[in-house]
Amino acid sequence: MPTLGQLNAMPAAAFVAALDGVFEHAVWVAETAASHRPFPTVVALHDGLMAVVRAAPEDARIAFLRGHPPLSPKALADPNLTAASRSEQDGLGMASLGQRLAVFEAGSAAYEARFGFPFIVCVRRQTPPFVLRGLERRLTNTPDQEAAAALAEIGHIARLRLVDRVTGPGMPETGGHLSAHVLDTARGKAAAGIRIEVLCEDVPVAEAVTNQDGRTDAPLLADGPLRIGRYELRFHVGDYYAGWPNVTDPPWYDVIPVRFGVADPEGGYHIPLLLGTWSYTTYRGT
Amino acid sequence: MPTLGQLNAMPAAAFVAALDGVFEHAVWVAETAASHRPFPTVVALHDGLMAVVRAAPEDARIAFLRGHPPLSPKALADPNLTAASRSEQDGLGMASLGQRLAVFEAGSAAYEARFGFPFIVCVRRQTPPFVLRGLERRLTNTPDQEAAAALAEIGHIARLRLVDRVTGPGMPETGGHLSAHVLDTARGKAAAGIRIEVLCEDVPVAEAVTNQDGRTDAPLLADGPLRIGRYELRFHVGDYYAGWPNVTDPPWYDVIPVRFGVADPEGGYHIPLLLGTWSYTTYRGT
Amino acid sequence: MPTLGQLNAMPAAAFVAALDGVFEHAVWVAETAASHRPFPTVVALHDGLMAVVRAAPEDARIAFLRGHPPLSPKALADPNLTAASRSEQDGLGMASLGQRLAVFEAGSAAYEARFGFPFIVCVRRQTPPFVLRGLERRLTNTPDQEAAAALAEIGHIARLRLVDRVTGPGMPETGGHLSAHVLDTARGKAAAGIRIEVLCEDVPVAEAVTNQDGRTDAPLLADGPLRIGRYELRFHVGDYYAGWPNVTDPPWYDVIPVRFGVADPEGGYHIPLLLGTWSYTTYRGT
Amino acid sequence: MPTLGQLNAMPAAAFVAALDGVFEHAVWVAETAASHRPFPTVVALHDGLMAVVRAAPEDARIAFLRGHPPLSPKALADPNLTAASRSEQDGLGMASLGQRLAVFEAGSAAYEARFGFPFIVCVRRQTPPFVLRGLERRLTNTPDQEAAAALAEIGHIARLRLVDRVTGPGMPETGGHLSAHVLDTARGKAAAGIRIEVLCEDVPVAEAVTNQDGRTDAPLLADGPLRIGRYELRFHVGDYYAGWPNVTDPPWYDVIPVRFGVADPEGGYHIPLLLGTWSYTTYRGT
Repeated sequence: MPTLGQLNAMPAAAFVAALDGVFEHAVWVAETAASHRPFPTVVALHDGLMAVVRAAPEDARIAFLRGHPPLSPKALADPNLTAASRSEQDGLGMASLGQRLAVFEAGSAAYEARFGFPFIVCVRRQTPPFVLRGLERRLTNTPDQEAAAALAEIGHIARLRLVDRVTGPGMPETGGHLSAHVLDTARGKAAAGIRIEVLCEDVPVAEAVTNQDGRTDAPLLADGPLRIGRYELRFHVGDYYAGWPNVTDPPWYDVIPVRFGVADPEGGYHIPLLLGTWSYTTYRGT
Repeated sequence: MPTLGQLNAMPAAAFVAALDGVFEHAVWVAETAASHRPFPTVVALHDGLMAVVRAAPEDARIAFLRGHPPLSPKALADPNLTAASRSEQDGLGMASLGQRLAVFEAGSAAYEARFGFPFIVCVRRQTPPFVLRGLERRLTNTPDQEAAAALAEIGHIARLRLVDRVTGPGMPETGGHLSAHVLDTARGKAAAGIRIEVLCEDVPVAEAVTNQDGRTDAPLLADGPLRIGRYELRFHVGDYYAGWPNVTDPPWYDVIPVRFGVADPEGGYHIPLLLGTWSYTTYRGT
Repeated sequence: MPTLGQLNAMPAAAFVAALDGVFEHAVWVAETAASHRPFPTVVALHDGLMAVVRAAPEDARIAFLRGHPPLSPKALADPNLTAASRSEQDGLGMASLGQRLAVFEAGSAAYEARFGFPFIVCVRRQTPPFVLRGLERRLTNTPDQEAAAALAEIGHIARLRLVDRVTGPGMPETGGHLSAHVLDTARGKAAAGIRIEVLCEDVPVAEAVTNQDGRTDAPLLADGPLRIGRYELRFHVGDYYAGWPNVTDPPWYDVIPVRFGVADPEGGYHIPLLLGTWSYTTYRGT
Repeated sequence: MPTLGQLNAMPAAAFVAALDGVFEHAVWVAETAASHRPFPTVVALHDGLMAVVRAAPEDARIAFLRGHPPLSPKALADPNLTAASRSEQDGLGMASLGQRLAVFEAGSAAYEARFGFPFIVCVRRQTPPFVLRGLERRLTNTPDQEAAAALAEIGHIARLRLVDRVTGPGMPETGGHLSAHVLDTARGKAAAGIRIEVLCEDVPVAEAVTNQDGRTDAPLLADGPLRIGRYELRFHVGDYYAGWPNVTDPPWYDVIPVRFGVADPEGGYHIPLLLGTWSYTTYRGT
């Protein structure tokens, strides 16, 4: 992976090649940005690329938007789909919408009929139900609002692709953060050895066990945006209580589920659990 | 339904007929107890009936235990099954054990081989997983311990059947109690209009909406024992927060699940939820 | 104490005598209201009396306001002070303001200079610091606003005096309510035997011990308005924990103070304490 | 201040001089320990010094205990009192016991009569009420138990004096730690700008304001043992709530006091406050 310094120094053609795929079928973006080098930070590079897009004449901009693949299981069959798009759409799994997939397909068609380009969304920040919800919301936009919304999504897509293609100073923030902490307020200390499952839209996505500090050795989720959606942490506390006095069968608390929504993919989400004997408290921590 | 006074005054044969089915295939219990009338309370009547059982010669007691139907989906096909047993076993639904039903059947056979009578349990106080767990625990009993355990279960069965057949002073306590309460600690008042679903072993069993006091007009569960098992309350708070400032999509809290175990079928279980904006607390209340 | 029915039926002069002192030096209020009898409820009687005050010509109303005694330790020396006023001012204890009493006296003089009548406040709903704060706030009123504010206070005074002079249907609500509840979330049951002290503006005003339900047999404060001010409950939990395992010396929690403000003298204030081993939660309950 | 390496290398007489005052009127301890050098850590040096004390013949040990000054306001007048003892006793302030000082003096006399040496306690780990409580408890010891108890206190005293006289690897742990954290669970973020007062036995000892993380820039107390005693944190939240909707006068919460006991002077005490609008939770954190 080239460094930002190398990108700044290489011939324009190599620069364009190195950024291939950051934008979908639009080499002209990098070609134009090449003459604006050097960029002091990767954030500045991203800003520079997006400025080229925004400064393009309207017909070029519309053509650019039209060049994006539709978001659809059918699009995965298209051999022209870029590898990045294929991987991103695969990771989203729109098929999990089941019967609501038809609602999404119809909405997608209505969107393209209304705005003249396909519905574009940065799928790495999404779960299928919220892609559908976003589509429904954006269908009510004016054309100007929607042009801005589509460009904002392209900005998210490009930022995530850029950090896969270059290292250097001033990397953009792409990561959200999910963590947890279990305090044993019955004994006044951290609760170790508690298994935590993480589900996103009811699908298991991570699992960890609390250490001596009542935390997990690594964040539950990090290294990229969180997906907008509904999450559940399942704190398996049954074994933790096992040696306590007066434990019943079944125990009072066995699995403690905490459900919450992630609306900000780049946000920090910290979920403490204050575990008493016959009570618990949870909150959004910091 | 006769009153206790009527039961005390009626001819012995009518008394025996009125209590038909309280004990499985064992009219001699009521026949003997008839001569101990009058009973001042229904609790005393129940005690008197159980005393007859306990005072019976060992071979009669064993025969009595053997007269109980096996707890099994197959038993439901037996035309000799009493109506009460049929209804009680139907309500339990052992078939929900799925693949573990075979484990239960094998354990049942081992039990009968070991103790000489079928595994007896008051199913109206049970869920299938805890019937299985109870079987596994009781298989480790000595014969004396198990004779006592089986009689205790028969006492529970008879008590629940008795309250369906007689009214009068001193009724036995048969009811557990499950209730909930939602306080809005963000506004310092009761939270009205919150829908609460109740699940027992993941099966929906009740539903209610909080009133102006943050409580439900009637208990979530009452009128009989609670079934030993794992419960979940689902507090649907998403709509409650809907008009608040800074609500995200998805909202921070939408469905708040609270899972807990019921080990005492006749116990009182009160589940308050203290609902903040970004926090909540729950505990076993009173 | 006469009933409302008796008040409605008695000669006008007796009616006036029975209500003597409800208004300060203003028999004409009752004299006029006498002809509006019968009143169906005590609330209606109070409304009727206040309507007479409000309907009086402006000069009579101003004279009426001027007839009120100043709120001041010095006023207590005035032999013309009505017994009711004397008792009410005694109960308030403005002397506790200490050095700030001079601030109050100066503000009082400024008030009378500005509005032409003494500063009137229903002292049974007040503590000295909030009398002072109210004076400072009302000094910024326009004359019209302040005439309304003074009448509202006279309405409070009259209502409290009326319920001491008549019984009958439709009594006005005069009572605030302060109560507490202690739940032992370490054991999942009510916490009995916990002594609770109540302080108002740092002065002890009540004390009680929790019963088997974790509540006090009677409300901590009731039977009249609460005084606007800062309260503290002191939950003495040290003895409660005494027999527990791992109690240190000093114990982790010994006295748990909960401070809160009462702004609504007729309001209900319920203070639950959820007592864990190394944690507690409190909130405004219902 | 010498390093441990320098202490290990210097002539015996210089070593003894450098440790002057670690033990009260007992140069022989350092004289004997000098020949056991080098010590690899400061902890080992402390252990080595205490081993010399423990290995001394009984009459020397008793003479050593007798060489300690009485703990008493009167002792402060004695010109023979070492500077370290004077400073430590000054910092404790036994005079704050008021009328109970006479109880302490009588107990001290009884102690010396019973055990033959003055009551020795490491006052830097104490508050006056707990010095008195400790005296009362230790009066019930057997002579053997008490000889051990007195030596343990001398060990604490020597450890604290040692860290003032030498630096080096393996310093003994002498510090307790008190910190706090305020979370705003009404807004889901840290609560900044909240003033926290710290009182120990009702005497103000520290004060700080929460930063953007809801923590204080430095621990509330650190740099030495905490004093055994009763503490109170006062969280001044009134201003924090000031701009919120529906704030009353007085506000619901203005000052939130949290009282707790410190029994372990070298322990870590972390006091989080989860601040809702009409509720709060506190616990011993980690």
